[in-house]
Amino acid sequence: MTGSLAVGVDIGGTKMLAVALDGRGEVVASGKVPTPPDAQRLLADLVQLVQDVAGAEVASLGVGVPGMVDRTGVLRRSPHLPALEDVALGKEISSRLGDVAVRVANDATCAGWAEHIRGAALGVDDVVMVTLGTGIGGGIVERGRLVEGAHGYAGEIGHMVVDPHGPRCPCGRRGCWERFASGSGLGRLGREWAIAGRAPAVVALAGGDPEAVRGEHVTVAATAGDGPARDLMAELAWWLVLGLGNLTDLLDPAMVVIGGGLIRAGEVLMEPTRRAFAEMVEGYDARTGLVLRAAALGETAGAIGAALLGST
Amino acid sequence: MTGSLAVGVDIGGTKMLAVALDGRGEVVASGKVPTPPDAQRLLADLVQLVQDVAGAEVASLGVGVPGMVDRTGVLRRSPHLPALEDVALGKEISSRLGDVAVRVANDATCAGWAEHIRGAALGVDDVVMVTLGTGIGGGIVERGRLVEGAHGYAGEIGHMVVDPHGPRCPCGRRGCWERFASGSGLGRLGREWAIAGRAPAVVALAGGDPEAVRGEHVTVAATAGDGPARDLMAELAWWLVLGLGNLTDLLDPAMVVIGGGLIRAGEVLMEPTRRAFAEMVEGYDARTGLVLRAAALGETAGAIGAALLGST
Repeated sequence: MTGSLAVGVDIGGTKMLAVALDGRGEVVASGKVPTPPDAQRLLADLVQLVQDVAGAEVASLGVGVPGMVDRTGVLRRSPHLPALEDVALGKEISSRLGDVAVRVANDATCAGWAEHIRGAALGVDDVVMVTLGTGIGGGIVERGRLVEGAHGYAGEIGHMVVDPHGPRCPCGRRGCWERFASGSGLGRLGREWAIAGRAPAVVALAGGDPEAVRGEHVTVAATAGDGPARDLMAELAWWLVLGLGNLTDLLDPAMVVIGGGLIRAGEVLMEPTRRAFAEMVEGYDARTGLVLRAAALGETAGAIGAALLGST
Repeated sequence: MTGSLAVGVDIGGTKMLAVALDGRGEVVASGKVPTPPDAQRLLADLVQLVQDVAGAEVASLGVGVPGMVDRTGVLRRSPHLPALEDVALGKEISSRLGDVAVRVANDATCAGWAEHIRGAALGVDDVVMVTLGTGIGGGIVERGRLVEGAHGYAGEIGHMVVDPHGPRCPCGRRGCWERFASGSGLGRLGREWAIAGRAPAVVALAGGDPEAVRGEHVTVAATAGDGPARDLMAELAWWLVLGLGNLTDLLDPAMVVIGGGLIRAGEVLMEPTRRAFAEMVEGYDARTGLVLRAAALGETAGAIGAALLGST
């Protein structure tokens, strides 16, 4: 190829987001289209999106997807994109683009790499990235290198079981971390409180129906200073830190970065999380310099990371 | 130094075990002494033990200890060896040995490294080692390198919380993995069943006192074919695999090695554990070649790994 742009695409459950980076790593173009439910349509729209942001200048392509991607670029498990399961994404896209080299990786892994290379964890060699959205995704950087695992599945942290008596998870087990500490976990918690009559301001934001409460209603009420909503955020933070503590015990990072849609809640999420983190992490005082930080790159982190991974 | 032997010492709660390896990595001498409760005595006895196994031939020394060891060789947290907490072990030992280079590391990390270099995981690059004793220790090898973490504390897996409503742990939290899946976890489980009248053969082995039941009584009864004891082993295996599943999600190893005193139980432990592992691990079928295996090096794994780490 003679192109000069490193393109990255983040395939989400509802939209595909693309960026093109120039030789200095600057984003020179970006685009966004809905994610079609059908695999063939999705591949066609993705290729069109890549051409829209980079035209003939595509030098490399990285693709981030939610799920377990193996080292050959096949998406082996993906509850959020079932149409792509067992599709050889890397090969299919590469052939449609005239044999551009394509690297496919987990979306949160991409986001973690982007935060390490040019975001919140710039210059930090041991990083755990946790993305809080509908589920929980993860990316691990150790001594400045991405931890990929034997098959490419490392960082699948959302299904860490933190309470075997907890709510059932679509994965078949009970009490996976993402049932508690994700955006949907916050919604579930909010509905529990709402149905019990403990969160009237949150219910009002949901149009008066306790069953209609979602995570956003809780964060909005908490930002407005509602006491029960703040208590709900503290409970969310407790569950979040339960898992962050496990990850810290295991990996001993210098920094934990929290990203994903839920961090748009800002300080109503970060403040109780930082407090619980300092209280709950084993040997916190011995972990000199350990920092918990919000992600810096926002919703483009996954696409930027995919572009960076695709070009190396 | 002019010595030719790489010495390793594994400091346990009750005994210190030393090995000396020659240039080809063969164990040419070994020794064992009780662990004194006092730090000064312990340091003196350790130095004597090193001299007993290698004399003037000490070229390097590695020391494995239970707890969180920082990169400067200071044991920062060690519930099993409180006397050594905040002792600069590396420096203290080095000066007593006439400035031999000393590397201090977590004992399970040492054992994991030994299994990787010359044990059950020989030739396997992505390994999680789990040692089951009074507590649970861990060692992580990724792409053939030891994962140490930012401070040197990586692999502290015993305090991964797997049930926040579970029994209280000396670490201050509830439901740490080692409360369930270790030798002492098996003892606790056995006493629960014994007190409920569900494990008469196990109680008989404990001299008729349900409160006196320990893990060994359960494994002995299970080996003899006692039904309730086998059910207890299956429950232990379930808790063990709950944590192994979390580690697999996170690190995507090619092999999980189980070591520590509890594996002397043999197949009554390994058989239900392998079965639960295949059933419970997320995406098991997509993890081609993933193997769960018993450690090969027995009680000297920690000392051998310490010697190997100390000489590199």
